[in-house]
Amino acid sequence: MSGYITEEIPAEELTRQIEQARELGDSVRRLVTATVVTDVGEEELAEARAHIDAAAEILERSRIDSSFGLRFNSDGRLRNWGNAVEGIRNPLAPPVEFHAEADHVWAEFDLGPQYEGPPGLVHGGVIGLILDQVLGNAAVNAGSPGMTGTLTIRYRQGTALGPIRVEGRLDRTEGHKSFASGTISTADGLCAEAEGIFIMPRWARGLDASRQLGVGDA
Amino acid sequence: MSGYITEEIPAEELTRQIEQARELGDSVRRLVTATVVTDVGEEELAEARAHIDAAAEILERSRIDSSFGLRFNSDGRLRNWGNAVEGIRNPLAPPVEFHAEADHVWAEFDLGPQYEGPPGLVHGGVIGLILDQVLGNAAVNAGSPGMTGTLTIRYRQGTALGPIRVEGRLDRTEGHKSFASGTISTADGLCAEAEGIFIMPRWARGLDASRQLGVGDA
Repeated sequence: MSGYITEEIPAEELTRQIEQARELGDSVRRLVTATVVTDVGEEELAEARAHIDAAAEILERSRIDSSFGLRFNSDGRLRNWGNAVEGIRNPLAPPVEFHAEADHVWAEFDLGPQYEGPPGLVHGGVIGLILDQVLGNAAVNAGSPGMTGTLTIRYRQGTALGPIRVEGRLDRTEGHKSFASGTISTADGLCAEAEGIFIMPRWARGLDASRQLGVGDA
Repeated sequence: MSGYITEEIPAEELTRQIEQARELGDSVRRLVTATVVTDVGEEELAEARAHIDAAAEILERSRIDSSFGLRFNSDGRLRNWGNAVEGIRNPLAPPVEFHAEADHVWAEFDLGPQYEGPPGLVHGGVIGLILDQVLGNAAVNAGSPGMTGTLTIRYRQGTALGPIRVEGRLDRTEGHKSFASGTISTADGLCAEAEGIFIMPRWARGLDASRQLGVGDA
């Protein structure tokens, strides 16, 4: 499959690259937040844009072909920097860092104003975006990875922007199908719950599951 | 409700502000893409970050309190710039511009490498994010707006990064519930379909529906 790349970057060099990727991602995340809520005047907008365009021109001097994909290093570490939920160098990703326990995965993080839908609340679709990732990771964590087949989200109350907690677990498997469920909650209690069916693609069934659609550790 | 703001910005001044918001959003969107796929070296990364941090400092000199919210202008135009799917000044948003027909809404746009999940494919959760918005807008377009109660997404095949088309329609209503459905497709055909139930919040039932959770026209 294109986009699944194996690399041999020396361990120390990779550690350094991961640090730089996180720093760049964090800088742009801060800029994204500032862009949504800024209230500066016309001159300052123009001044800021000049810096932003200059930064884009520098970064565009050399780029990888197509999207980032999944990059497996010879030392076992996976780079999924382009992932829209977990990618440390993807400014759209909060990025969520999942913790894996024996029977479930979980994460706690903040959602800023760029994740808004209704005023002051997390966009219902962002709730779904995060639940899709947590359910998929729960399936990976239990050794039964797959691509999303069906996802059902039930919204119990609006989710205020700010700190949230997500959890997911694998409930059962049937052949190449994994059934997972999970929740999003805040200090106000349960906000949304989801059930999903994840299906191992035909082309991946002969491969080592831990190297497909894996939970990132970068 | 906090976050629903009524403003009296002169029409010409608002038009100018909308242009500037779109330009700023587009600049940061270009930077986000470049951040995900850049392959420049250490020195250039540092040079780019200096520009990015400088831009953030400028934009942070003055900011609105909390999130952007929904801002209704006296000339009838709505600013939903913080919306994670439609917000012109939200770099996370593609931004999607929906077209309203008599019985459905639709949009065509590109999804770049920052929307990746599996290698080369749109993140399953991003599919859900966009379908949530299109179904919600279909309900608004049919005069029955609401907040998402339940959303079910069925994935028929992977959605390649690049140009996509989304469509949504209101199927029926029951009291304060709106039942909507929609699809995402590419040149490869149907990729995903969704059904959703949208519920008008209790506090909004006495208000003018067109001024709640509206389809943005900015």
